[in-house]
Amino acid sequence: MIIEPKILKGFRDFLPDQEIERRRIAEIIERVCQRGGFVPIDTPVLEYEEVLLGKGGGETDKQVYRFKDHGSRDVAMRFDLTVPFARFVAAHFHELPMPFKRYHLSKVWRGENTQRGRYREFMQSDFDIVGTDSVHADMEILLLIYECFAEMGIKNIRIHISHRGIFNSLLKTLQLESKQVEILRSVDKLQKIGTGKVCSLLADLMPEHAVTSIMDFVQPEASFVKTIEKLKKFFPSGDMNIDRMETLFGMIKDCGIAGAFTFDTSITRGLDYYTGIVYETFLNDLPAIGSVCSGGRYDNLASLYTKEIIPGVGASIGLDRLMAGLEDLGLLEKKMSMLDVLIVMMDDKYGGYYHALSHKLRNRGIAAEVYLESKKMGIQFKYAEKKGIPFALICGEDEILSNKVTLKNLKTRENKAGISLDEAIRILLDQKA
Amino acid sequence: MIIEPKILKGFRDFLPDQEIERRRIAEIIERVCQRGGFVPIDTPVLEYEEVLLGKGGGETDKQVYRFKDHGSRDVAMRFDLTVPFARFVAAHFHELPMPFKRYHLSKVWRGENTQRGRYREFMQSDFDIVGTDSVHADMEILLLIYECFAEMGIKNIRIHISHRGIFNSLLKTLQLESKQVEILRSVDKLQKIGTGKVCSLLADLMPEHAVTSIMDFVQPEASFVKTIEKLKKFFPSGDMNIDRMETLFGMIKDCGIAGAFTFDTSITRGLDYYTGIVYETFLNDLPAIGSVCSGGRYDNLASLYTKEIIPGVGASIGLDRLMAGLEDLGLLEKKMSMLDVLIVMMDDKYGGYYHALSHKLRNRGIAAEVYLESKKMGIQFKYAEKKGIPFALICGEDEILSNKVTLKNLKTRENKAGISLDEAIRILLDQKA
Repeated sequence: MIIEPKILKGFRDFLPDQEIERRRIAEIIERVCQRGGFVPIDTPVLEYEEVLLGKGGGETDKQVYRFKDHGSRDVAMRFDLTVPFARFVAAHFHELPMPFKRYHLSKVWRGENTQRGRYREFMQSDFDIVGTDSVHADMEILLLIYECFAEMGIKNIRIHISHRGIFNSLLKTLQLESKQVEILRSVDKLQKIGTGKVCSLLADLMPEHAVTSIMDFVQPEASFVKTIEKLKKFFPSGDMNIDRMETLFGMIKDCGIAGAFTFDTSITRGLDYYTGIVYETFLNDLPAIGSVCSGGRYDNLASLYTKEIIPGVGASIGLDRLMAGLEDLGLLEKKMSMLDVLIVMMDDKYGGYYHALSHKLRNRGIAAEVYLESKKMGIQFKYAEKKGIPFALICGEDEILSNKVTLKNLKTRENKAGISLDEAIRILLDQKA
Repeated sequence: MIIEPKILKGFRDFLPDQEIERRRIAEIIERVCQRGGFVPIDTPVLEYEEVLLGKGGGETDKQVYRFKDHGSRDVAMRFDLTVPFARFVAAHFHELPMPFKRYHLSKVWRGENTQRGRYREFMQSDFDIVGTDSVHADMEILLLIYECFAEMGIKNIRIHISHRGIFNSLLKTLQLESKQVEILRSVDKLQKIGTGKVCSLLADLMPEHAVTSIMDFVQPEASFVKTIEKLKKFFPSGDMNIDRMETLFGMIKDCGIAGAFTFDTSITRGLDYYTGIVYETFLNDLPAIGSVCSGGRYDNLASLYTKEIIPGVGASIGLDRLMAGLEDLGLLEKKMSMLDVLIVMMDDKYGGYYHALSHKLRNRGIAAEVYLESKKMGIQFKYAEKKGIPFALICGEDEILSNKVTLKNLKTRENKAGISLDEAIRILLDQKA
């Protein structure tokens, strides 16, 4: 008669120790976004299938959870936060102050193969600036990526940036525009299959001098400046996108964060819809996990839904991959509670006194709970230890009558006996700070 | 060719001014929960239909969004946070420290009639203590409800509490246990249809003296003490649940919050699965919107999924109804941004300088953004006004060369010219505090 409490493959329960950390990291991203002038929005999890899939036909489409609702409408669960954002901007274009800067942290669903640590339900955290083509918006997004990781305690990152427009100009020079898709696909494999194999893939598509040009183009250089110098040789009469990259790099230097950036001409972001700068972010101490934050500039976000031309630039942090990375780096805690102090239940008849203490402590910003049964002190301390609560507040009859408390440090076992509640609050607040 | 950017009936987009407030209220609830020792968990939005619907057959079932997934599994979207919590506790029983206190703020979906301000996608915020039958857990939940509303700035609430067990004892005394369902259903209509009609409904079910007893029982009294006195007359040989209510009331008084509580014997919570205390919460200044936070004690949370007997007590805040109430009470702001200061873009060539300023300000906890295009000052100030940004930071060439800034208060139009960045930061931090 018992139903097995199982969950679907690719879906997860988050126990408190995991969820506390996931929320802590999500809150850091939120805080950085808010501090940078980005605002939250929300969109429905379920939308019209037609709206989410558009003209459809892509690989993603097969993975989308879709069904007929109670009114026989074809509906689908969102599979990313970009498509709903495009729909949102089109629907509310005249209500939004432009340029519009939004962030959105939410779950999305894809019924994909669950091998290799992929999940069917996962969190995305996106931030975008739409309504302007300004290089300052590009700068703003890059700065925000840097600030997110810095706020998490990770300064040792490297943001690889490139510009899709410069690559396209090269293909134009080489008269290879018609083969753009295949070429992008080949170059995107550089890290996976190496230079030699990419060269032979390209050799099937173009004359040898063109292969040499492309391989020279994507070859890493020692510095941002050297990369710019090399690129300029490809375009003797100048290229406005190279100028834009120079401007951008100047601003990155002005912010004192140039050490975190690499001009990496091999970054193309495959077949994505980007048209301007593109970037991927790597943790230097964990290069193997791949990019933890990627994005770029696109020239028209919402063309499916409106005739307004809405350019933009944005980035997405893969929270699952990032959490795995933070765990490997030892930057996650495993906490079963966020409590500062446990109020020991010495005697049921003083329950009201203990709850009143807890109410007072919480009003002062201290996380406090009353142990809910009058069990032996040893059991109550063991519970506190299991939950990682650092202090216990003990008030027996004598202390209640004399309006004093005893504060026990559960790590050092040290007691501060017979102190006032205010004194205990002071110690607890000091420990928090 | 343009797809209309429409959304499904009963679903909503949240624009920044709405979402900022929804998150602010959600964060208050989270903060109060965390401060009270409750921890967050998360469960999948999609689960096996069999797990979510159990034996099924209820009214809710028809409203559940369900379908076959890519693997032909029967799946359903969660329609509340209680059923997934029961499944969660059963699945992880031995990993959770008991008593276990969790909160969960998340969306749920019900394909119900969208009339009367009901939505098909809405937020629930639940907090429960499971694994103990202690009266201190009852007290803890009531205290938490009070603290949530107090933290929102609403102290003028009234939490109506009652005890389902006492009502059941009355029915037993009257030998009416077999008609419990119909009686509960009738009494639950008191507020809607009035005393007279409830009496005649009851008269169809029982002899007149029993109707008199029940109507006497649910009649409001002037105080908690008077209610206890009345109830004791019904049970000359005593009733442990009345004793429990007395204990509870004593503790509420010790916490100094008795003014917010009413012993309201007419609260039965209809046909819910509660077995102990039950409660509903009303805003005194907006009684018409009904209960904004309800709940109670249940004797076995997870009987569908495990043989472990898991008693608990919990409450749920209806965030949509509450937000509507807060709006009516003038307790919501309408903000399109959370910025403290706009850095004016005087000249593109100093872009890097402005971004560096913004980076410095954010590192000091000030929400700052650079205006992204070098337009006329008037346009930039207008943008700041539209977004409700209180200050503008202005640095022309002279100021940049002399390492000074001008801080403009956009409300008073007052300028602090030629001050140091540190001085500006001090003023901005003071304004925030």
